[in-house]
Amino acid sequence: MFYPRQTKEFINIDPLQTGGRLSEEAKKALVEWGDGYSVCDFCTGTLDSIKTPPIYKFVHEILPEFLGCDVARITNGAREGKFAIMHAFSGCKGGEIIMDENAHYSSYVSAERAGLKVIFAKNSGYPEYIVTADDYETAIDSAKNPVLALVTYPDGNYGNLPNIKRIAKVCESNSIPLIVNGAYAIGRMDFKLKRMGGDFIVGSGHKSMASAGPVGVLGMKEDYADIVLKKSEKFKVKEIEMLGCTARGVVVMTLIASFPHIVERIKRWDEEVRKARYFAERFEELGIIQLGEKPHNHDLMFFESKVLYEISKKAKSGRFFLYKELKKKKIHGIKPGLTKHFKLSTYMLSEEEIEYIIRAFEEIIEKYSG
Amino acid sequence: MFYPRQTKEFINIDPLQTGGRLSEEAKKALVEWGDGYSVCDFCTGTLDSIKTPPIYKFVHEILPEFLGCDVARITNGAREGKFAIMHAFSGCKGGEIIMDENAHYSSYVSAERAGLKVIFAKNSGYPEYIVTADDYETAIDSAKNPVLALVTYPDGNYGNLPNIKRIAKVCESNSIPLIVNGAYAIGRMDFKLKRMGGDFIVGSGHKSMASAGPVGVLGMKEDYADIVLKKSEKFKVKEIEMLGCTARGVVVMTLIASFPHIVERIKRWDEEVRKARYFAERFEELGIIQLGEKPHNHDLMFFESKVLYEISKKAKSGRFFLYKELKKKKIHGIKPGLTKHFKLSTYMLSEEEIEYIIRAFEEIIEKYSG
Ligand SMILES: Cc1ncc(COP(=O)(O)O)c(C=O)c1O
Ligand SMILES: Cc1ncc(COP(=O)(O)O)c(C=O)c1O
Repeated sequence: MFYPRQTKEFINIDPLQTGGRLSEEAKKALVEWGDGYSVCDFCTGTLDSIKTPPIYKFVHEILPEFLGCDVARITNGAREGKFAIMHAFSGCKGGEIIMDENAHYSSYVSAERAGLKVIFAKNSGYPEYIVTADDYETAIDSAKNPVLALVTYPDGNYGNLPNIKRIAKVCESNSIPLIVNGAYAIGRMDFKLKRMGGDFIVGSGHKSMASAGPVGVLGMKEDYADIVLKKSEKFKVKEIEMLGCTARGVVVMTLIASFPHIVERIKRWDEEVRKARYFAERFEELGIIQLGEKPHNHDLMFFESKVLYEISKKAKSGRFFLYKELKKKKIHGIKPGLTKHFKLSTYMLSEEEIEYIIRAFEEIIEKYSG
Repeated sequence: MFYPRQTKEFINIDPLQTGGRLSEEAKKALVEWGDGYSVCDFCTGTLDSIKTPPIYKFVHEILPEFLGCDVARITNGAREGKFAIMHAFSGCKGGEIIMDENAHYSSYVSAERAGLKVIFAKNSGYPEYIVTADDYETAIDSAKNPVLALVTYPDGNYGNLPNIKRIAKVCESNSIPLIVNGAYAIGRMDFKLKRMGGDFIVGSGHKSMASAGPVGVLGMKEDYADIVLKKSEKFKVKEIEMLGCTARGVVVMTLIASFPHIVERIKRWDEEVRKARYFAERFEELGIIQLGEKPHNHDLMFFESKVLYEISKKAKSGRFFLYKELKKKKIHGIKPGLTKHFKLSTYMLSEEEIEYIIRAFEEIIEKYSG
């Protein structure tokens, strides 16, 4: 049975997917390395030690430089990287983790799994939902035993980019190591941990590094390697939190194959921000208001649309009318049933595609406001 | 940069890889669903809830029936499934896990990560390395607080198939839940948890289910689902030990695409055992002795070869002579440097390929025994 992917010919504005489309090189690597354990042909002990194909070079030379950290590893995804750090630090001693209120669910669930109590650094609420260093200060003051902090850069709801430098200072002054969740940054924009601030950086290969999934990256400062990459007492080369090997298959080869493409595209990040701001302006002319940080600094945008919500109350298919109309116009990415609030991404869309989407919303609003 | 896979045209006898080659259907699914988060086009909350593509049907209808269990999930691999169970049971309260001495390193490292102390059920030593129910009885008697037991079926060194029924009885009478690590069974032979015995079954998609990796399967009896699949307190649909979603990408589509092929090939398992036994007989004529269970019941076989070891002492390239000679004959799978002891797999090899490999070893021995 062959299951075709229905959205293949659609214009994709789903924030989850716009940064995960395979590069041409990755498509070739996918076919070449598809078999199970294909990358283990010449393995000498662990995934990151494999010289052929050049995983060692990617993990020990290319990634640390690209992430601006000392030590890096491949993971099965951003969430697996976050959990490995939290689990290593909690070590069944419990404690708390300070987390921005805009954090992704997988950060909260990682903390639950690691036995860490979550204390939120509150956001500023409607309409910008900003989280500042002061919010972290407040949260830390209320904590009894904070062992870690996490900041989502940008967050997955509003696409806000918190001030990491300041947040990192607050954490440092309270000697709390800071995890930067760069799932929507690494692979989209340049990010250097040691320059930006923070002690750990996690990225999502299948979300923002043009890779097949599940795969991700993890970077850290040197002095944390012995905690997070602690070796097994019996199997000396095997790192406990990595269960010895993580993304042991074709996914890592698509990550490596897409890397040159990533290095190029992050140079065009300002262009992506410009397109996003232009899109938000045009949407506001339709009465669809961008919430979150403004002016906006990321392709992920959250919109509030009273006009579409009003239409949904009268439309035949109710709140599903928007999804259905967009589907007719071969636009994928807005969750079915959403009209009042929804998020989308303009990442890597061409000028024509951006105009097409704006016109599509115009036509839909006109059609139902007759 | 395109990295070709050097072993692509080789005959593969690496136990790690013989069961992970993609089916034709999986190759098509690989290309169709390669993009990151491709399977999340119509997601309503969690990976296992996705109706299009039919992941829900696979996880909730097909897998439980295939594994002979009540509840199943997709994981990032066999080790991730083992760790999820151990971590859920240990719950930072510690305790011990009884494990066969032939257990895979990833079982031991999972226990370390979950904070469980490992107590080994000893094997019988040279030459068969058998583990019996009595060995589990002995290990349990020596344990202070055993919370779990694990049996590797078959083990990854000798390919021995322990008597699960008896071992399960011993565990049950001591009310210790039993994990069956079927990484080398699920996808190769028919296995029904509730018929064979045990409380959990883990499988490895990229090792024995003709899938791209990292991906695996996890099955359990109903009364353990609320422990292992406990939901987040804040994000009610998200399962903590699954971090909400596990193999969220193309790997799960290759697993689903290969399933009909798997259902067919497990019917021919007796034929695979017959080929393995024939191979071992022919090898013994060359003075290469199969260790482990005899007669053997699996395609994974461990060999001892004094003749090859003697040659390695005089050969120009020393203990690498075997690897080099096999490479010339386009045979991949024996670890470089091994001569005295090595393991291989005859799984899915044609009769011709089996003869070719036997003749290759004959010629190598002759060449160096002149
Ligand atoms: C902000 C954010 N962080 C983390 C994740 C999880 O990424 P991964 O799937 O690589 O674990 C997501 C995915 O949706 C996200 O939006
Ligand atoms: C006996 C055994 N169990 C478990 C594993 C781990 O399987 P996975 O890579 O799916 O975690 C292996 C892999 O080498 C193995 O040989």
